[in-house]
Amino acid sequence: MKLKKKVVVIGGGTGNFVVLKGLKKYPVDVSAIVSMADDGGSTGILRDELGVLPPGDVRQCLVALSNSSRLMRSLMNYRFENGGLGGHSFGNLLLSALEKVTGSFERAVEEASRILYIKGKVIPVTMNQVRLKMVLNNSKLLEGEKEIYLSQEIDRGYRSIYLEPFPNVNPKVIEAIHQADLIVLGPGGLHTSLIPNLLVEGVGDAICRAKAKKVFVLNLMNRKGQTTGYKTSHYLQELVQFLGKDIFDHILINVEQPPKELIDVYASEGDLVKNDMKDRRILEAHMLGTVAHSAKKDLLKRNLIRHDSRKIAKELMHIVDHL
Amino acid sequence: MKLKKKVVVIGGGTGNFVVLKGLKKYPVDVSAIVSMADDGGSTGILRDELGVLPPGDVRQCLVALSNSSRLMRSLMNYRFENGGLGGHSFGNLLLSALEKVTGSFERAVEEASRILYIKGKVIPVTMNQVRLKMVLNNSKLLEGEKEIYLSQEIDRGYRSIYLEPFPNVNPKVIEAIHQADLIVLGPGGLHTSLIPNLLVEGVGDAICRAKAKKVFVLNLMNRKGQTTGYKTSHYLQELVQFLGKDIFDHILINVEQPPKELIDVYASEGDLVKNDMKDRRILEAHMLGTVAHSAKKDLLKRNLIRHDSRKIAKELMHIVDHL
Repeated sequence: MKLKKKVVVIGGGTGNFVVLKGLKKYPVDVSAIVSMADDGGSTGILRDELGVLPPGDVRQCLVALSNSSRLMRSLMNYRFENGGLGGHSFGNLLLSALEKVTGSFERAVEEASRILYIKGKVIPVTMNQVRLKMVLNNSKLLEGEKEIYLSQEIDRGYRSIYLEPFPNVNPKVIEAIHQADLIVLGPGGLHTSLIPNLLVEGVGDAICRAKAKKVFVLNLMNRKGQTTGYKTSHYLQELVQFLGKDIFDHILINVEQPPKELIDVYASEGDLVKNDMKDRRILEAHMLGTVAHSAKKDLLKRNLIRHDSRKIAKELMHIVDHL
Repeated sequence: MKLKKKVVVIGGGTGNFVVLKGLKKYPVDVSAIVSMADDGGSTGILRDELGVLPPGDVRQCLVALSNSSRLMRSLMNYRFENGGLGGHSFGNLLLSALEKVTGSFERAVEEASRILYIKGKVIPVTMNQVRLKMVLNNSKLLEGEKEIYLSQEIDRGYRSIYLEPFPNVNPKVIEAIHQADLIVLGPGGLHTSLIPNLLVEGVGDAICRAKAKKVFVLNLMNRKGQTTGYKTSHYLQELVQFLGKDIFDHILINVEQPPKELIDVYASEGDLVKNDMKDRRILEAHMLGTVAHSAKKDLLKRNLIRHDSRKIAKELMHIVDHL
């Protein structure tokens, strides 16, 4: 029997969700390494009020990898609408209650993985309670992922980005990276999903030393005030700062053009990422999701220009098949 | 193969919990018919804020009949402590979220039954959104189960107790009663758990016409201001008012004396129920639970004088074995 290839996906948030959902269909052994910096919305309230670790990104990855019924997956993403529960997603409450009952977030994730019949593993990058902070070039301090996500002046430059307190890495992260055959970074918010994983001690180093092939999946859109006007090289440059060196074997880029009306809709929020690199590492592919009518109701409604999970997974599997 | 006997337990609340938990261990086919009048605490908030049906009593019955892990059962009863979630039990949130996602409380109970691997069935007595109301002899109107539960003047007499709006019975209730070999009423709050089931159209009539043997399990304690000084005959009389006739084949009574210090502790809350009937239907048994140190932490902590689930089930199984 051929051993299944091990794929490690690093990120957090909806970018990860699409990759994991796509890879779930293939005979690979998937691990999702998830940033623990989220402090917005339901997750932020749970952190503040209950002192739990942030469940939101973990929940999304669990749902992406879940083989349970459609109903269970809908349940996990269901958000209460009114009263004291308003805005909380049920899956977040499940993870937080499990953390309280078991006494550890790690066990909570394990139990939720069992309840949701997940394929693969979801691994929080750290089990420490951390906040993401950023000092801008104008000396302004941004406290928390949410504040960073909402800032419109990051693209004017920042002096530092860090997690506080400086966290210990979850040893399972290092193990997964070490054993991986393929490591996928992105797509996802550069400062809010990707870099926060690299700020945890030992993660960047482990990626650099891993025997795995490394792929960077370029985002489709720049977020205004965050990565305005960024091209491939800017993303790469900034990641390399945190990794220590340019270790990517492949850079996967979408070349399918979104409909003009969608680009116009997005104009106030950001611009399309353009490619400025000619490099044999660049892999061009058509990976755009079609905008289903139902998308308006679903998890990713904010991202009408988005990757198609099947297309992105197919491209990643091409790489896996040639390992 | 001998067909398993069908036992229907009618009530809601912690009295039911003890009976169901005990019967779960035996090879009988258990159905729990649950009052839907609860409107206190977490359940009351969910009804008010989300417009859902009351999950609390259903949750307790599901947990009692659950064959899932101890962890899952703890999770269902876990109560959030702080913030907007404070006071909500996780199991209530599960049922309410499932009701929202599936669009029906019936499907919510089915799905939760599956998630919790329950043995038997939990059947809400009605799927209508009802409030329990009571008009006292002094013309005072008590609105809602919580208000009735907290009243200290019910034992001075009431003119009427009713559900508003007058609900339709869940057809599965009539079916379960019709097919039952044994029907167990009690223990449980007379006005807040037992009678509310009999106020639903057709339930009393179905019980009277059922071929099953009928057992009434007498409460251990009277609640002050509710049933102060009630003896067996008072309970029976009041139930018969709502049933139309005295249909009980057995009246199961505890004769084990609780420790005096516990009776003293309870003196401000109520008195021990005494038996005033000499009747061949009376079955006397030792059914008192021991007060484990852990009881202080568990679900039933308010009921330190309580039935033992194993003892009560053993007595009920004596009856089943002689059917």
